Amino acid sequence: MKNPSIATLASHSALQILWGAKRKNIPSFLVVPQERVFMYERFELGHNNIIVNSFKDILNDEIQNKLLQENSILIPHGTLVGTLTSDEIINELKIPVFGNKKVLLLEKEAELHKRWLDESGVRTPMVFNNIDDVDRLVMVKFTGAKGGQGYFASNSSKEIKEKVKQMGPEAEKNLWIQEFIRGVPMYFHFFKHLDGKNKLTGIDIRYESDANAFGRIPAIIQYPLKLRPGFTVVGNIPVVVRESLLQKIFRIADNIVEASKKLAPPGLIGPYCVETIITPNLEIVVIEISARIVAGTTAWIPTSPYAEFSYGKSVAVGELIAEEILNAYKNDSLEKIVS
Amino acid sequence: MKNPSIATLASHSALQILWGAKRKNIPSFLVVPQERVFMYERFELGHNNIIVNSFKDILNDEIQNKLLQENSILIPHGTLVGTLTSDEIINELKIPVFGNKKVLLLEKEAELHKRWLDESGVRTPMVFNNIDDVDRLVMVKFTGAKGGQGYFASNSSKEIKEKVKQMGPEAEKNLWIQEFIRGVPMYFHFFKHLDGKNKLTGIDIRYESDANAFGRIPAIIQYPLKLRPGFTVVGNIPVVVRESLLQKIFRIADNIVEASKKLAPPGLIGPYCVETIITPNLEIVVIEISARIVAGTTAWIPTSPYAEFSYGKSVAVGELIAEEILNAYKNDSLEKIVS
Amino acid sequence: MKNPSIATLASHSALQILWGAKRKNIPSFLVVPQERVFMYERFELGHNNIIVNSFKDILNDEIQNKLLQENSILIPHGTLVGTLTSDEIINELKIPVFGNKKVLLLEKEAELHKRWLDESGVRTPMVFNNIDDVDRLVMVKFTGAKGGQGYFASNSSKEIKEKVKQMGPEAEKNLWIQEFIRGVPMYFHFFKHLDGKNKLTGIDIRYESDANAFGRIPAIIQYPLKLRPGFTVVGNIPVVVRESLLQKIFRIADNIVEASKKLAPPGLIGPYCVETIITPNLEIVVIEISARIVAGTTAWIPTSPYAEFSYGKSVAVGELIAEEILNAYKNDSLEKIVS
Repeated sequence: MKNPSIATLASHSALQILWGAKRKNIPSFLVVPQERVFMYERFELGHNNIIVNSFKDILNDEIQNKLLQENSILIPHGTLVGTLTSDEIINELKIPVFGNKKVLLLEKEAELHKRWLDESGVRTPMVFNNIDDVDRLVMVKFTGAKGGQGYFASNSSKEIKEKVKQMGPEAEKNLWIQEFIRGVPMYFHFFKHLDGKNKLTGIDIRYESDANAFGRIPAIIQYPLKLRPGFTVVGNIPVVVRESLLQKIFRIADNIVEASKKLAPPGLIGPYCVETIITPNLEIVVIEISARIVAGTTAWIPTSPYAEFSYGKSVAVGELIAEEILNAYKNDSLEKIVS
Repeated sequence: MKNPSIATLASHSALQILWGAKRKNIPSFLVVPQERVFMYERFELGHNNIIVNSFKDILNDEIQNKLLQENSILIPHGTLVGTLTSDEIINELKIPVFGNKKVLLLEKEAELHKRWLDESGVRTPMVFNNIDDVDRLVMVKFTGAKGGQGYFASNSSKEIKEKVKQMGPEAEKNLWIQEFIRGVPMYFHFFKHLDGKNKLTGIDIRYESDANAFGRIPAIIQYPLKLRPGFTVVGNIPVVVRESLLQKIFRIADNIVEASKKLAPPGLIGPYCVETIITPNLEIVVIEISARIVAGTTAWIPTSPYAEFSYGKSVAVGELIAEEILNAYKNDSLEKIVS
Repeated sequence: MKNPSIATLASHSALQILWGAKRKNIPSFLVVPQERVFMYERFELGHNNIIVNSFKDILNDEIQNKLLQENSILIPHGTLVGTLTSDEIINELKIPVFGNKKVLLLEKEAELHKRWLDESGVRTPMVFNNIDDVDRLVMVKFTGAKGGQGYFASNSSKEIKEKVKQMGPEAEKNLWIQEFIRGVPMYFHFFKHLDGKNKLTGIDIRYESDANAFGRIPAIIQYPLKLRPGFTVVGNIPVVVRESLLQKIFRIADNIVEASKKLAPPGLIGPYCVETIITPNLEIVVIEISARIVAGTTAWIPTSPYAEFSYGKSVAVGELIAEEILNAYKNDSLEKIVS
């Protein structure tokens, strides 16, 4: 069998995925809309372009056949999960996908996601299914929303109703009201290896516009203008965690892995992310799980403190993906890490 | 004499300390409560476990004898300083401790700490010994408090009295009211070498719950609910400083070293941290000193800009500790860097 | 011809510039006031000191002759641009300056800067030439001000008038009122190479006192005291950007390069920085351009994710400068990268 190559969509964490492949001498294919070709060519990633009109074209027979011919493994990331429907992921992607496609649905489908969190037994924010029930400060989110756009904080059902109405029926349908948890965000990057090891590879803070700069506007200006922050993710900042919290974090991650095995056997494979709020009482509240590489891992290229501790060497998630594929290929067990 | 090994308590910055030892091929012993053993084994640090019920067990004869047999040097960190009493540190620890135990007391004992700051001649926040004297915005802290839990900001003596009363007599006893300094926090990591060199190794910002996310809550919600932030340290963020401030920072660090020599000869040995607020007028106000490795150094594994500049190579504090021990061992001067 | 050396003023990003030269074995000269000599000697940068009374002494014949004799290339940074007048830069500096001096004026002179932004066709904040026209939240800045000192936010022309009056005639003269853009700051570091490549080398967030900690003060305290943040830059924090924004960012950077060619041929050479606000709608607003190395690049020593992607190796801007000089020297085209 021909040596494996990797493929990915030209967005989200593609730079890192291509970089990791290059570090391990794995050929790479970038599924890229014409208008982004120039951008990826500003870097030295040694990739091959597969030019498309839109990311959905990854489903086209011609493109899938080309990638099958190249023995290519598709590395999924947030853009893939956001672009394709669950049905398309499961039934229309013929090329092998790194990891477990069914776990991607645990991330993608609101009901499954809720069941995954419940099954994991982790602490999560209270959810309000009815706007009228809102009796405290809440975060108003929308499932399927990309990167936090449109999210807002409120403590008034009247206000939530008005704003959601203004946003239209799509917003009403995807409404997801979570108790506002007092604390600071921290996003823990893990990697579940084929040998069973569940490793911490890094941590980031999301940089949200304009939530992360909103505190620069003084109350004397905020208050009369009734200003509210936005929560659109525009970047990521590296961070390390208070060491005594790691014990709880690994328990949570292990529970999430076990729950994924139960709900979508054989469960998580490769990188995933546990997205939390750490409260002033040092409780860890899980707000979301990502079932694949997250963009925040790019803050830790070429290495992170936790990668150094976990692997005894300098390594980043893009490279770990490439390594995992090479190892499986050498051991004739590629089928165990793709789906 | 047998080659030296290192030992440390399984918390705070143990990951980094073990990692540094491994990089220099020094055997390491982790004094670890059973429930944390699994967590440290998620990393590849090559350490030996010494399992205890609680960190205080480091004082047990059996454990100390084992470590003495292994020619082990105990690397102190925040958990050691927070767990043991001053008397225990000085009189009950029979194993050699890296650095100068007496300087640990300059950090630990409120009165000594104040004297250290005074002797250093650095600018510090005004202290209010009497709640009734509070006439401006202050930070209400508690000595002995771990990692900022319970701290709050206030500008009302009435409010401070009420809150402190609610918190109980222990809080009243440990009350420490500092003028609130307008500015941004910056924590400067230094290393005092046996050869006399006083080197900058990195800088971090503490990530506090929920102070570092409090500004995301708009005034329109904060104000009517009278919300207040918490100041529990849950992580650290890497930062670099405006270069023209380094001159002042080194003068401050040198003064702190000189003061430590006077108050606790031979003064600081190894890593320490100068914890500051930088004001909008570029004044540097010292709020605290740590007399040993701080957790924020882990944000800069495997290296930092200042480590690159200071040593001309990639190195982090855990590794510098290991190097300092090896150098002293080779030069037959271990006794000069332990106490 | 003698091998080239580099020279720089002892401030801003001198540590990085010296470090980069050392990594490439280029001799370096630090033009340093006596009181800062000790500080730079705390690091291992292998530089030679040229001691001066003030940075302006770089214009003295004796010093310029010494540097000419050493075949030295002056690496400009923020302190050079802030210390010398435009006339001094263009007419009194006899030593070769790395990059294009005329582009430094595009940064330095308010009118030229405005023309550069206009010519680039990038989105910029609306400017108010008359205080009475202020009808929204604005940032009140002062051209020539160093590192944000004195900047304030306001939405009242009355208040702006009073404050500016208090600050004196110099402030009135340099007044620069920009619409306050809701969003988060991001500073993109680029390097324009002699071979035409326009590379991304890193991104930072400025750490401003006390804007970046102002949100820690609750509205219940801020509001009655009418507190306002300061915007003095005291450090830099590393960050990575949402990958899908890079397409826009490269278009902006390319437009800025093209505009520099038109306004100051041959345009930008070497490092520069595009200083932006990213809005919640993912628009990129350019607030300023720096036409030389920025201090924030030091947050990414010895390397950054984007340097790894751009060059396929670990490298930082100080080192890229040294490399660019060596390459030009070897190809006998030094004159193309200095002015």
